Amino acid sequence: MSPVKVFGHPMLTNVARVLLFLEEVGAEYELVPMDFVAGEHKRPQHVQLNPFAKMPGFQDGDLVLFESRAIAKYILRKYGGTAGLDLLGENSGIEELAMVDVWTEVEAQQYYPAISPVVFECIIIPFIIPGGGAAPNQTVVDESLERLRGVLGIYEARLEKSRYLAGDSITFADLNHIPFTFYFMTTPYAKVFDDYPKVKAWWEMLMARPAVQRVCKHMPTEFKLGAQY
Amino acid sequence: MSPVKVFGHPMLTNVARVLLFLEEVGAEYELVPMDFVAGEHKRPQHVQLNPFAKMPGFQDGDLVLFESRAIAKYILRKYGGTAGLDLLGENSGIEELAMVDVWTEVEAQQYYPAISPVVFECIIIPFIIPGGGAAPNQTVVDESLERLRGVLGIYEARLEKSRYLAGDSITFADLNHIPFTFYFMTTPYAKVFDDYPKVKAWWEMLMARPAVQRVCKHMPTEFKLGAQY
Repeated sequence: MSPVKVFGHPMLTNVARVLLFLEEVGAEYELVPMDFVAGEHKRPQHVQLNPFAKMPGFQDGDLVLFESRAIAKYILRKYGGTAGLDLLGENSGIEELAMVDVWTEVEAQQYYPAISPVVFECIIIPFIIPGGGAAPNQTVVDESLERLRGVLGIYEARLEKSRYLAGDSITFADLNHIPFTFYFMTTPYAKVFDDYPKVKAWWEMLMARPAVQRVCKHMPTEFKLGAQY
Repeated sequence: MSPVKVFGHPMLTNVARVLLFLEEVGAEYELVPMDFVAGEHKRPQHVQLNPFAKMPGFQDGDLVLFESRAIAKYILRKYGGTAGLDLLGENSGIEELAMVDVWTEVEAQQYYPAISPVVFECIIIPFIIPGGGAAPNQTVVDESLERLRGVLGIYEARLEKSRYLAGDSITFADLNHIPFTFYFMTTPYAKVFDDYPKVKAWWEMLMARPAVQRVCKHMPTEFKLGAQY
């Protein structure tokens, strides 16, 4: 059986998300590298895989999927059983499953909108986007950090009651935090997490996972103007 | 058995989403109205239900949930079987289920970011937010409409191949479009949809559902400065 194929650059957060779950379940996969600076993701061949012309694209035989969170769930359903992992909580009762959904949505609706503008302003716009190079918009950064502190305060209270966000086992909800938080930790604002010791310990627990380390080694921690990413 | 409780105002999009799925499955529920203009959602009693101080809150006996998409999935899992509805696709194979996830994510990641700024600029900021009343920011509106047209073009191509987004049956992915699209259709830009006949027909098919009509009758279609919503 041919391995599944992931089309994209492994430093991109949505590509990293898909690779992370493939690594967690130990599935065989082929990463088909794409040059996003050259706009390879906008070419017709890729648009057939992802009509929104974004990365990643994903192929498993005749099945074509896009949207990294949806791809990740497919991977967990296909391979999670063999790997003995129930990261979606689908083998539990509907109440436990609901807690995974709640904290998965919290990441998407509350955490991501707070943390991502800092990563965009400090890294993605100046270093990654062709023709970027503008200084970070400090107002956007400051407002986002204030919002992030509010979210981290709620996480701190939650993690005083359970080891992970959805309960005492790690789930899809926790691991979805990896890609953007990884890059946030390379910005000058990483120390914001020091004020939330339970969150900091949770983050270190996530980063210690072998699958996480294998994916993050393809994600740069230093950014230089004019470098090839 | 006590009915489940939804805390919030039924005109709010995230409250409407939860009510919509309760109506679709025909579950008994109690709507506990909250006055958002008075900031009732920020009071300690509500923050115990939703730590992010947002609406809706949701209670089913001892179970407390927040995040409307997560609540909606719980409702579908709890009552969908009795109602003979498999809107999440969980009774199908993992490939069909993946298509529901893909288009659910498309709504959240591509459609919502395109359509919601128009609704915010034209309705929510001027009429709903206390102290609003500013004229819409036309640059934001125009950029969002351009982005929305791109998304609708992709939907049009998709709906030429299948009756609904994830396939020939209606799913969670389609119905999640209701709340924001309903309000978009009350703005001067509703006619944008006329250029996408398959999308327009799909939207009319969604709006014709009795459950949708029952929820939308609590959502105003005209907005006046100073009115009580």
